[in-house]
Amino acid sequence: MANITKKVSWSSRADDSNATGEGTPLLNGSEQLGDSRQQSGGSISQIGRVSTVNMDEEITSEEDSLKGRPKEITHNEKLLSLKYESLDYDNSENQLFLEEERRMSYLGFRCLEISRWVVCGLIGFLTGLIACFIDIMVEQLAGLKYYVVKENIEKFTAGGGLSISLILWAVLNSAFVMVGAVMVAFFEPIAGGSGIPQIKCYLNGVKIPRVVRLKTLLVKVAGVICSVAGGLAVGKEGPMIHSGAVVAAGVSQGRSTSLKRDFKIFEYFRRDTEKRDFVSAGAAAGVSAAFGAPVGGVLFSLEEAASYWNQMLTWRIFFASMISTFTLNFFLSVYHNNPGELSNPGLINFGSFDKNSSSEYNLYEIPLFIGMGAIGGLLGALFNALNYWLTIFRIRYIHRPCLQVMEAMLVAAVTATVSFIMIYFSNACQPLDVVQGEDYPLQLYCDDGEYNSMATTFFNRPEKSVQNLFHNPPGSYHPLTLGMFTITYFFLACWTYGLAVSAGVFIPSLLIGAAWGRLIGIMLPMISTNSTGQIWADPGKYALIGAAAQLGGIVRMTLSLTVILIEATGNVTYGLPLMLVLMTAKIVGDYFEEGLYDIHIKLQSVPFVHSEAPPTSHWLTAREVMSSPVTSFNRVERVGTIVDLLSNTSTNHNGFPVVVSNANGEEPAKLCGLILRSQLIVLLKHKVFVELARSKLTRRKLQLKDFRDAYPRFPPIQSIHVSQDERECMMDLTEFMNPTPYTVPQETSLPRVYKLFRALGLRHLVVVDDSNRVVGLVTRKDLARYHLGKHGLEELQLAQT
Amino acid sequence: MANITKKVSWSSRADDSNATGEGTPLLNGSEQLGDSRQQSGGSISQIGRVSTVNMDEEITSEEDSLKGRPKEITHNEKLLSLKYESLDYDNSENQLFLEEERRMSYLGFRCLEISRWVVCGLIGFLTGLIACFIDIMVEQLAGLKYYVVKENIEKFTAGGGLSISLILWAVLNSAFVMVGAVMVAFFEPIAGGSGIPQIKCYLNGVKIPRVVRLKTLLVKVAGVICSVAGGLAVGKEGPMIHSGAVVAAGVSQGRSTSLKRDFKIFEYFRRDTEKRDFVSAGAAAGVSAAFGAPVGGVLFSLEEAASYWNQMLTWRIFFASMISTFTLNFFLSVYHNNPGELSNPGLINFGSFDKNSSSEYNLYEIPLFIGMGAIGGLLGALFNALNYWLTIFRIRYIHRPCLQVMEAMLVAAVTATVSFIMIYFSNACQPLDVVQGEDYPLQLYCDDGEYNSMATTFFNRPEKSVQNLFHNPPGSYHPLTLGMFTITYFFLACWTYGLAVSAGVFIPSLLIGAAWGRLIGIMLPMISTNSTGQIWADPGKYALIGAAAQLGGIVRMTLSLTVILIEATGNVTYGLPLMLVLMTAKIVGDYFEEGLYDIHIKLQSVPFVHSEAPPTSHWLTAREVMSSPVTSFNRVERVGTIVDLLSNTSTNHNGFPVVVSNANGEEPAKLCGLILRSQLIVLLKHKVFVELARSKLTRRKLQLKDFRDAYPRFPPIQSIHVSQDERECMMDLTEFMNPTPYTVPQETSLPRVYKLFRALGLRHLVVVDDSNRVVGLVTRKDLARYHLGKHGLEELQLAQT
Repeated sequence: MANITKKVSWSSRADDSNATGEGTPLLNGSEQLGDSRQQSGGSISQIGRVSTVNMDEEITSEEDSLKGRPKEITHNEKLLSLKYESLDYDNSENQLFLEEERRMSYLGFRCLEISRWVVCGLIGFLTGLIACFIDIMVEQLAGLKYYVVKENIEKFTAGGGLSISLILWAVLNSAFVMVGAVMVAFFEPIAGGSGIPQIKCYLNGVKIPRVVRLKTLLVKVAGVICSVAGGLAVGKEGPMIHSGAVVAAGVSQGRSTSLKRDFKIFEYFRRDTEKRDFVSAGAAAGVSAAFGAPVGGVLFSLEEAASYWNQMLTWRIFFASMISTFTLNFFLSVYHNNPGELSNPGLINFGSFDKNSSSEYNLYEIPLFIGMGAIGGLLGALFNALNYWLTIFRIRYIHRPCLQVMEAMLVAAVTATVSFIMIYFSNACQPLDVVQGEDYPLQLYCDDGEYNSMATTFFNRPEKSVQNLFHNPPGSYHPLTLGMFTITYFFLACWTYGLAVSAGVFIPSLLIGAAWGRLIGIMLPMISTNSTGQIWADPGKYALIGAAAQLGGIVRMTLSLTVILIEATGNVTYGLPLMLVLMTAKIVGDYFEEGLYDIHIKLQSVPFVHSEAPPTSHWLTAREVMSSPVTSFNRVERVGTIVDLLSNTSTNHNGFPVVVSNANGEEPAKLCGLILRSQLIVLLKHKVFVELARSKLTRRKLQLKDFRDAYPRFPPIQSIHVSQDERECMMDLTEFMNPTPYTVPQETSLPRVYKLFRALGLRHLVVVDDSNRVVGLVTRKDLARYHLGKHGLEELQLAQT
Repeated sequence: MANITKKVSWSSRADDSNATGEGTPLLNGSEQLGDSRQQSGGSISQIGRVSTVNMDEEITSEEDSLKGRPKEITHNEKLLSLKYESLDYDNSENQLFLEEERRMSYLGFRCLEISRWVVCGLIGFLTGLIACFIDIMVEQLAGLKYYVVKENIEKFTAGGGLSISLILWAVLNSAFVMVGAVMVAFFEPIAGGSGIPQIKCYLNGVKIPRVVRLKTLLVKVAGVICSVAGGLAVGKEGPMIHSGAVVAAGVSQGRSTSLKRDFKIFEYFRRDTEKRDFVSAGAAAGVSAAFGAPVGGVLFSLEEAASYWNQMLTWRIFFASMISTFTLNFFLSVYHNNPGELSNPGLINFGSFDKNSSSEYNLYEIPLFIGMGAIGGLLGALFNALNYWLTIFRIRYIHRPCLQVMEAMLVAAVTATVSFIMIYFSNACQPLDVVQGEDYPLQLYCDDGEYNSMATTFFNRPEKSVQNLFHNPPGSYHPLTLGMFTITYFFLACWTYGLAVSAGVFIPSLLIGAAWGRLIGIMLPMISTNSTGQIWADPGKYALIGAAAQLGGIVRMTLSLTVILIEATGNVTYGLPLMLVLMTAKIVGDYFEEGLYDIHIKLQSVPFVHSEAPPTSHWLTAREVMSSPVTSFNRVERVGTIVDLLSNTSTNHNGFPVVVSNANGEEPAKLCGLILRSQLIVLLKHKVFVELARSKLTRRKLQLKDFRDAYPRFPPIQSIHVSQDERECMMDLTEFMNPTPYTVPQETSLPRVYKLFRALGLRHLVVVDDSNRVVGLVTRKDLARYHLGKHGLEELQLAQT
């Protein structure tokens, strides 16, 4: 049987809770307040109707105040932050909305559907274009850098003084990285990292501030170019997913708030429901462009996002993905001077694993693959654990932008130095004719016609190194080279992830895995007894399996990653081994440590709602989970009351049940609707008061358009001036509230609440008693709080930071 | 604005409705009854609280009476049949269930999860094995047949008397087909056809009687072998999906009701929720085995089934699919004497479209592809329209089993004759060395060293013909041959689909499309002006596009079909063209006629709930949609009342709200739970009466196991004997009802109801007023009734057949 450990209700909240009640029907009476005050700050092991007051999210205005300099982030993964807003995936079906929908003809719906397709096409096109731009820029810049350094090395190899080459390399790297890090650290911290955790959260329904802004996109794109060109152990693939999402959020709204331009198109799409659909398409298009994997992109979006499977939506997402790959291929083919040759896959090209006998696998190899999956899981867990401690260290000590920039530059310089030393001290020479895909063969101290094999992995763009490891013929690499490379690169990559640069972890993971995978592929025939001298294990195949195992061990994605890898290799043959390897890596890895993205999401204290309730949570019911008492409004409410409640910064509620009080007014009142903070703010701004409506009959009726114009940056309540006279006016909420919010009885079990919440993408779920009277409200935080820890079901604390 | 046309409440129903009310609280008072009686039989154009009484489905006992000889099926697609039961995808979270879940430890949940994986592995393995069996049997039998006929033809070619060969061929075909048709028509009519429409319905939540029984599987497998070996224009791929589903339904239950064996394992999975999950996995495994497309299989299942996206479930489905492909490959590789060579794809092998320059496409070819998509859409619509009329004809006149067998034999004979005539009169000879994949080259009247090219398409298994059309080098086919073949095969395939044999439509569609696609590929260089003699259009590529277009035009699948085709070609390059072609084919086709499967589903009057509500249905609310008055029970109810209500054959309700009556008893009563017919039957069978519980204290408490043992074939109410004394006992439903059914207010719009219903896979949705009092019940039929017709929103009639 599960048991809950450590329930601490958030201390500074309970003291303010008596301020919330002023003038509004405080449901469940005041004895609950007393309760919550008693419990504040203490550790309560008993589960009951504990009053964690409903404070859904921070008000939108603070979004902007966060900008520029990031606040110190809480570093306790046992906390749930209250600073994140939720998205509303459930339409508020109020009268305005229904009237609009009813006015719309069948043709209107068709047009809407067509514009959705157009938007998805645009998203795919622009995402592909961005991928193309990044690819070409990186190729040019990195090419220039490697050319300069190679020339320099060749100049100094004979005469000595290679330390000058080292310094040149390190300085070049640091310079590139500095540019990238300055942009991220000073201008847009949210653009740092791969962006996948942020997009995961967004698609899960958490509104991460500033994550889909134009500025974020610009910094992301420029940043990733700098960090890849700067030779860090990073990839340019992860950021594509974020870029695609930003493009989607921008294009679908038909306007740019940052640029203050409104094209007056796609106005219908200005709400969370539609926007999130498009963002899924954008993320899919990003995956598709990054890996040439349109199906993988769709599955990625579905795995992370779609709670409610919608056939047409999926089909549109697929369309965006396809267009994105196609655009990338087309422009890259033009760039590479063979226009129209469209079968070039995404940014990372695994090369085609053709169906020849050496690349096929046999039944007896499957246990080997599973073993490699286990190794990948172990190494991945080690990587994640190291990165976790590093991240905690960074949060504590390196939170000033200039320090972050300096760390990034240091990593860049160290990467160059380590690479140089490895190359310098390696004497693994290989004849030059063996190599096919070698862009910058370094001769160094090798004989003429030979090159340094360590340099093929270190002195190269990581994508190219991966490809070499997959496809170079047997004998291209010395086992010692691979071993040394694996160890060095492992620590470099681990140090790099989490720097204030925008960069992905896919390629470094693949590279590490490919290196040790290939090492295993080389070692296997050596240790097998009946070695006939024939190479029975194609090392390239083992490199692929190792890459999959390592990547799976770090990110712990399952279905989508399998499909991405199948598509990237262009060969469905490896489907089963890849799946088994990823599965093993996930099972082994999960035993020790969570996935890298999940760790970072937890460290940000994001209230992430997983797809299913923890298994042993059947004995919790809505009664225990819900926040109560609930602040609610009457159907016709005094303006002053509304303003006061919205202004109360300690209880930043975002959804308010609308109730009809009974005659005797003391009981919990009957539910008749649900209204959102954002709607109330628009109403207040337009002064939709009963008294004014009576006096000015000509006054324009408030339309859905007014709500859409304000979306998504609703003004804070503080910016709305309400005079003392107006405070005494009344507001009729009937027309604007959602009259049919979803409700559950108090006895509903947590898994059932969870399912309803997830399946419909809810933000607020009203808990009612057997007479439809409001007794509580379930929000995202109430559900995200419960998770399965080492000692059974645990409950996270709530914190305002 | 939409308007509802033709609402006819089902006439024979309303007359019985006063019988339903006896002794139970009939909600909404008796004036509703009067209403409904007035309206019965008439055509009512006004929408209001029309009392289409809630009669969810037929009782289970009739399932068996249907067997052997099929009833005449209603042939009006404007009707919704009431004979289909719904599945319950929503767990009944009653006290027994919650107690069990709460008793279960974390380890218990882990074990359960592991056994789910084991079951999925088994499903994949067995499905692969069945596919392997079918493949080998067909190859052997068809090989034997073609060998005999070829020998015969060669014997008679010189000396004349080829009519004897023709007769031999026709008789052999008819004999094979007769065996298959007799099994289907006399023993298991549900095993006829491809089974995809039935599985679509099952996954949608409609319980098609006998669809997942062992006998169905046996007949299906034997039938498909006979019909393919019998030379009909059919494929063996569609039936694999059905077979996989049956395997899944069988394995997951850990027992066989047909064989009367209970292995006492997997008892937890004996309910609709779990069973449907496994059936999705089975269907996916079937697709995967048929086309070597594990990802396509997953997407097929998701497209057709999953309302609620569940990450772990999808991952399991993928596992089953992978295992299925792997098993098939492994055993086929053993059969073909190269064991361990595992890269052989599914049953249909498209051959690999390698990445050479001729098989790539250029930008200017995309409009051509889209044009071909439009042709495919047109031809598909024509195919569907012809098959629709044919099906109507069959329903009216050919519904006796012996007639069905005779028709099937006739088609087999005609197919052989037509093929023979085509081959005989064709004088398109090709040199023998061009051919690579020719199993049975017929020389006939060609010169030595040449063969008849018409025979490569007609005198061959259809899969082989498709492959030849894709891969034979340019010049293998004469345009006239292809043209003639397309026309002949089109009509043959159209005639064949819907016969009482078990067979799929995928391969014939692909074959028709490949033929005209290759024809276009051959014609294009001829008509292009600057023809340099060089073959710029690889005909094999156009054959592929044509095949996709034709298949898309007939079945109208989208995402999953694209992925299936990508995987079957083993080349992601064609992703974009395939997607565009399928999209165009669907859009063009949908303009004229529905998809083939949808037509057949409609002709069976199945209440199919689509993924979204019709677009212009926002002005309908739950109040108009719901069935009312509702038959409900008190929390403690008299046994006699329950028995009478369940026995009332005219109102076969399946779900009953449980209510708490008010003190003054006349109003609608408050909802406190929901109980199912199947639960009540188990309660009655075990005589769980309040009085008996008091008298016999030692009596064993009813457990969830008792419900599981009865699942899925709950005995009919008639088989339960209740004595006159027992009728006066009381039953306490508290422990067994679902205390937290989902509810909606009356004002909820239809799309919102629809969304909730679909997302959670509901069977009953209770409509309540603002005090939580039951006013109506929404079931599958209430939603499936509304669909978008030519003249806006239309409402289907309900019929008992």
